[in-house]
Amino acid sequence: MAGHSPAPGRSGGENRRHRGTQTGDRSAVTTPLGDDKQKNVDGRATRGARDFDRNHRDILNAAIELIGEDVPRSLTVAAVAERSGFSPMTVYKHFPGGRAEMVGIIRNQVLASGAQKYMQQAPTLSGEEHPRAFLFAMVDEFLSNKNLVIHSLSMSIELADKNAWISDPIGLAWHSIEMAEKTIELPATVAELATLMATFFRGALYAWCNRFLSDEEFKRLAVQSFDVAIAAAEAGHHA
Amino acid sequence: MAGHSPAPGRSGGENRRHRGTQTGDRSAVTTPLGDDKQKNVDGRATRGARDFDRNHRDILNAAIELIGEDVPRSLTVAAVAERSGFSPMTVYKHFPGGRAEMVGIIRNQVLASGAQKYMQQAPTLSGEEHPRAFLFAMVDEFLSNKNLVIHSLSMSIELADKNAWISDPIGLAWHSIEMAEKTIELPATVAELATLMATFFRGALYAWCNRFLSDEEFKRLAVQSFDVAIAAAEAGHHA
Repeated sequence: MAGHSPAPGRSGGENRRHRGTQTGDRSAVTTPLGDDKQKNVDGRATRGARDFDRNHRDILNAAIELIGEDVPRSLTVAAVAERSGFSPMTVYKHFPGGRAEMVGIIRNQVLASGAQKYMQQAPTLSGEEHPRAFLFAMVDEFLSNKNLVIHSLSMSIELADKNAWISDPIGLAWHSIEMAEKTIELPATVAELATLMATFFRGALYAWCNRFLSDEEFKRLAVQSFDVAIAAAEAGHHA
Repeated sequence: MAGHSPAPGRSGGENRRHRGTQTGDRSAVTTPLGDDKQKNVDGRATRGARDFDRNHRDILNAAIELIGEDVPRSLTVAAVAERSGFSPMTVYKHFPGGRAEMVGIIRNQVLASGAQKYMQQAPTLSGEEHPRAFLFAMVDEFLSNKNLVIHSLSMSIELADKNAWISDPIGLAWHSIEMAEKTIELPATVAELATLMATFFRGALYAWCNRFLSDEEFKRLAVQSFDVAIAAAEAGHHA
């Protein structure tokens, strides 16, 4: 898969791939004070923190690589350790929750990346354009990270099955409906509409991940989720 | 979990559990002609077929046991072999598709068992009572086989992820809407309504399996699926 989402919210600038020069990078940790900007104890602490951040990103990128492969290998701590070149203990130091924590972070990055696309348009939108733009942004993000989404969804349900906690991302849908409510009258509370919208969206997502729907059918259904929620809420009112 | 669904559609009568007396049962295979009803070559063939059926059920019951446990063990051929007391080769002889075939069969049994409950009521129903009764029957069946449903759903998405084919069970929903169409006018085609209904139902199911919804919330949402489909189709018409 070509384009992994960059980690949104992570410090930019240094966002290059380090895997190629990884051994060189890491040797810097043991080379005493090679960098002229960091000659004192504080500098050492700063560099340590920077190395920690970089290793953290390298490990996460290895996990993203694994989860994004066409024939996915199971995203285990051992596999991430092997791919990133770090020891399993280092992987656990960075991600104490192991597999569940990494899957959760990667899934949240895709969600955040979709939400960000919507947020960029948000100032120009009003009323129901908000949830609709939100849905289009999410669907686009999912379609352009297809393997990653399908694999992380498959893993998240497997993890939920094993009682690993992954948060419900319904808050993102909620926000776009709150924005709509600022300029139009809605037929139900934001909470009710968010539940209805998320339920329909998830059904399309789940069917797509199970290969019951093509990419096109997934898109066609998923972007209707807000309209379905409104229709259901209105019908409920009249009943 | 107390009540596993009996295998619907499988030959009745002999549907007791054999695991307790398994060794005794199986030793009958090598004891020559112990049963007075089967003294000729044809009788031997009949008994062979009966043994095959019984072993098949025993293996499947072991798989159902494994999948229904509170802390699920992975449903591998090796685990099923160990639990049932047969060799992995025998398990493969009965289920050449291995894990994927067993998960598919177990999931289909739950679906068929729910569908059967609806079919029993069907002769007394008319119009939209059909899809509504269908939804109630499915939700009841899912709630009373909670572990089995959640684990098989988790496994089926994992298997879809690995490109193992599991059929789309939308046909069941389809039938109940066709029945409704016999006595009432519907705002869209059966195909369109089945897709909308299945999408909403699946979203509730998926959220429930991810522990985003309680049993009660799952039920409340899932049984609305037909009404949501109708409302969405009607809104689509007026738009």
